[in-house]
Amino acid sequence: MDVIRIGDADDPRIAEFHAIRDRDLTGRGGRFIAEGTVVLRMLAAAHAKAETGDFVAEKILLLENRVAGLGEILEAFPEDVPVYVASSDVLDRIVGFHLHRGVLALGRRHREPSAKDLLASLPEKALVVAAFGIANHDNIGSIFRNAAAFGADAVLLDAGCCDPLYRKSLRVSVGSVLSVPYARAEAVDLLTTLADRDFAIWGLSPAGTTEIREVPSHPRMALITGTEGEGLPAHILSAVKTARIAQAPGLDSLNAATATGIALYEIAMAQKRL
Amino acid sequence: MDVIRIGDADDPRIAEFHAIRDRDLTGRGGRFIAEGTVVLRMLAAAHAKAETGDFVAEKILLLENRVAGLGEILEAFPEDVPVYVASSDVLDRIVGFHLHRGVLALGRRHREPSAKDLLASLPEKALVVAAFGIANHDNIGSIFRNAAAFGADAVLLDAGCCDPLYRKSLRVSVGSVLSVPYARAEAVDLLTTLADRDFAIWGLSPAGTTEIREVPSHPRMALITGTEGEGLPAHILSAVKTARIAQAPGLDSLNAATATGIALYEIAMAQKRL
Repeated sequence: MDVIRIGDADDPRIAEFHAIRDRDLTGRGGRFIAEGTVVLRMLAAAHAKAETGDFVAEKILLLENRVAGLGEILEAFPEDVPVYVASSDVLDRIVGFHLHRGVLALGRRHREPSAKDLLASLPEKALVVAAFGIANHDNIGSIFRNAAAFGADAVLLDAGCCDPLYRKSLRVSVGSVLSVPYARAEAVDLLTTLADRDFAIWGLSPAGTTEIREVPSHPRMALITGTEGEGLPAHILSAVKTARIAQAPGLDSLNAATATGIALYEIAMAQKRL
Repeated sequence: MDVIRIGDADDPRIAEFHAIRDRDLTGRGGRFIAEGTVVLRMLAAAHAKAETGDFVAEKILLLENRVAGLGEILEAFPEDVPVYVASSDVLDRIVGFHLHRGVLALGRRHREPSAKDLLASLPEKALVVAAFGIANHDNIGSIFRNAAAFGADAVLLDAGCCDPLYRKSLRVSVGSVLSVPYARAEAVDLLTTLADRDFAIWGLSPAGTTEIREVPSHPRMALITGTEGEGLPAHILSAVKTARIAQAPGLDSLNAATATGIALYEIAMAQKRL
C-alpha cells in the first residue's frame, strides 16, 4: 500500500478536507466527506460498482497510525485513489478541530438519476421511502439507515429535504446513503410518478386513518414521511392514503427516525421481504 | 407573576446553573437541569404530584424575553419556586455558552424508589423496559421517550446505564424521564425481581429466536434492551427468552432507539394497551 505523507496543512492535494465542519453546509459539486471506518467501507463498496452506481471515491486522508488497521478496506479501493496520511497535529490543522477517529475520504456523486428513471429501474415488488420537507441532518441520515435495514429499494427526497451527503447525515446513516439509491424531485412530481408506476402510496401521520400494522400489502409500496413537528402538509395527506402509529395519549410524539423505522418494519414484514 | 432579576452572573442564587455544559457529567445529589419549554412543562406536571411522585422543582432561570410567552407553564409551579430572569448577556455568562432557547430549571429527584418497590406498585397488566449497559445519553433519553409513547409503566436501569437526568438525556427524552417511573439495580437483581413478579422477560437481540411480531402476549411483559454495538451479554441472553427484529442481511444494524421503539410498539399492540 503506497501512502503519501502530508506534512503541511496547506498542501493543495488535500485542500478539500480543509475546515470540513464549516463547509459541511455547502455540499457543492456532488462532492462529500466520508468519515469513519464504517462509512469508508461503504464508499469502497460503492466505488467498486461505480460503473453502474452513483458514487466514486476521489481520495483518502488518514491519521498515520490508522493505516495498518485499515489494510483490507484500503485494498478494496483501486490504486488510482490516492491515500494521504498525516500526523495528528497536521490532520487537526487541516480539518480545523480534533479529529478523533482519523479516517476521512472524499467522494463524489458522479451520476444523479432522476426520480423517474430511478423508479423505472425498480423491481416488480418494491418498497420506497419518500421524505418530504426533512431539513434535519440526523433525521435524513436515520431514514437511509432504516431504509437499508428493512431492505427498501430507494429513497425519494422532495425539494425541502437537506442533502443526505452532508457529513453528519452520511455518518448517522452509517454509510447507507451510499448503498440505497436515491433521487430528488418536487413533491407533486414524486406523487404523480409513484402513482403512474402503480405504487400504493401511504403517508405517515399521527392523524392517519389506518393503523400501520393493518396497512394492506401491495407489490409496490411507497411510504411518505414528513418532519417531526409539523408532519406532512394537509395537501399531501389529502392526496394519499394515511397510516398512523398508535401511541399513548399525551403531548409527546415519536422521534422521526423511530416512526419511520416502525412503519418500514411493518410494511417490509407485510410484503414478506425480510 | 413575580420574577427576580439577576444582573450578576456570579449571583449565588443561581449558582447551580453555572457552566452547566461541563457539569452535565456529574449529576450529584439528585439535582438536574431541565432545559427548554417542553421539559419545563413536564417538570411542572411532575412537581404538581410531588407528594406521591419522585421529582420537585427548585428554581427556574429564564431569558427575560421568554417570561411573557411561558405564563401558563410558570403558573403551574407553586409560588415558592423562584423564577429568576436575566438578559441574554448575563445568561450566557452564567451557563458558559450561548443559550439559544433561554429556558432552564433546576429540579431534584427527591425520592428514589427501589426496583422492588417500583415493580410492586405496578398494575396487574404491565409493560416495563429494562435497559442494560446503556451509557449513551441519547439512547437512554430515547428509551424513555419510546417508553412514554407506548405507555410503558416503568423503566429499569442496570448499574451500567448512565443517569437519565443528564441534561442531554432529559432533553432527548422530551421530558419523559420525569413522567415514566424508573429505578436502578444490578442486572441480576432486576431479572430475579421481574421473574418473582411473574413478568415474561424478553431480551432484544439480533440473534433472538422469536420475531418480535410473534412474541406471545402476557399480562406482564418486560423488554430488555442492550447497547447498540455489543447488544446484551451472553449470560443475560441465556437466562431469558429472546426476540429479534428481522432486517435485510448486511453489516448494518438498527439504531438502539429505533430497535427499542419497534419492540415496544409490537408488545404494546399485542397487549392491546394502545
